[in-house]
Amino acid sequence: MDVIKPYKRGCGYSYALGAFPTFELLRKRPERAIGVFVHSTFPEREKVAELCAQNGIPVWDNDKAIARLSDKENVFVIGVFRTYEDKLDTEVPHLMLVNPSNMGNMGTILRSCLAFGIHDVAVIAPGVDWMNPKVVRASMGAMFSMRIAMYNSFEEYVCFASGVGREYFPFMLNGGTELSPVSCPKPKLYTLIFGNEAAGLPAEYAEVGTAIKIPQSEEVDSLNLTIAVGIGLFCFRG
Amino acid sequence: MDVIKPYKRGCGYSYALGAFPTFELLRKRPERAIGVFVHSTFPEREKVAELCAQNGIPVWDNDKAIARLSDKENVFVIGVFRTYEDKLDTEVPHLMLVNPSNMGNMGTILRSCLAFGIHDVAVIAPGVDWMNPKVVRASMGAMFSMRIAMYNSFEEYVCFASGVGREYFPFMLNGGTELSPVSCPKPKLYTLIFGNEAAGLPAEYAEVGTAIKIPQSEEVDSLNLTIAVGIGLFCFRG
Repeated sequence: MDVIKPYKRGCGYSYALGAFPTFELLRKRPERAIGVFVHSTFPEREKVAELCAQNGIPVWDNDKAIARLSDKENVFVIGVFRTYEDKLDTEVPHLMLVNPSNMGNMGTILRSCLAFGIHDVAVIAPGVDWMNPKVVRASMGAMFSMRIAMYNSFEEYVCFASGVGREYFPFMLNGGTELSPVSCPKPKLYTLIFGNEAAGLPAEYAEVGTAIKIPQSEEVDSLNLTIAVGIGLFCFRG
Repeated sequence: MDVIKPYKRGCGYSYALGAFPTFELLRKRPERAIGVFVHSTFPEREKVAELCAQNGIPVWDNDKAIARLSDKENVFVIGVFRTYEDKLDTEVPHLMLVNPSNMGNMGTILRSCLAFGIHDVAVIAPGVDWMNPKVVRASMGAMFSMRIAMYNSFEEYVCFASGVGREYFPFMLNGGTELSPVSCPKPKLYTLIFGNEAAGLPAEYAEVGTAIKIPQSEEVDSLNLTIAVGIGLFCFRG
């Protein structure tokens, strides 16, 4: 493949910019990989070629394609893959993001999820397109180890993905239960729910479960979303 | 003031891009403010003008200056301030960042510090310039409520800023003490120490105190620095 157009939502393929995300693609989702562009100066060509050969994936030596796709980033290898849809596992804890809007944040959150053993993320629409190369890169390829699915509403999620006996924890600035390192709830099956970067969660989410507040100084407006999610994941993991 | 040049490290002034950071400047560091640029479409001109009048700070109506300084960001007010140097309070907990390199991360970390009651940050050189408008904006103006100081080495910090009876907690991927929400140390006076985004902390930091490891899955390389700092701050705050 010598010609590939820039990514557009729904175009059917996307790419992993950089060595780390590309290796994650080849290891975790080889069946989705279409091919790998390698720059003439990339020192690990052999390692990439071996992984590709094992899975029948072509390697393309093409400096120009890399320059065109890399979008100012300093990358020397780009994995191209077919986009895909996942179903969540209904029997494990989930993270839910309601209307996430920032691609960098989405990637960082996916990386935190994987670090703390959460493999399933529900997105309530509208929300950022996690197949975008910016999300893939910000996640450092973590997204290839996860199941992510979008739902039109909380109700739709509950019908199709929640499973039996799940507890819900919406994180809200005015939540009634303060999260503390020592008194964090320890449910077996749960969904941690976080709102949009600017708007937070709509008020009605307080009704779906135990609304959690991360205690914080009045000197700040709120925590950055990715930090709040990281703290929530860490505490619930126990 | 009609002409102001783009920011350069050491130029003596910097600016707060946007309403929230500018209000923080006017409330927390009015003595450093030189003036405020207001766009003709900015709805809160009166509020800005009142705060400025209280402190003898000029308001400049100048759409062109805002367009020039805003660096593609969508901002309608810009606070200009003289840069300054702080001394840390030796009798309170500190955060230490060793060679931080990303301005957005630095701002996010300052915001997390303020949220969790840490007002003093030590930076070990070389490190990012926290007077840069990108840091000011990423901190949402939190930096105006903080004391931040740079030291050439850990030893220099200990001599000039540490105080008596302080405990040190370097966060390292191979730290010997696992951080858990329930067993976090509870020292009275402490410094949490974090390394560079890519390289982490130099090995010798393991010797300066109790090396802490945030338990995380082997499926990821490491947590994003800002997430690790957020979790550390939250747990030590208790």
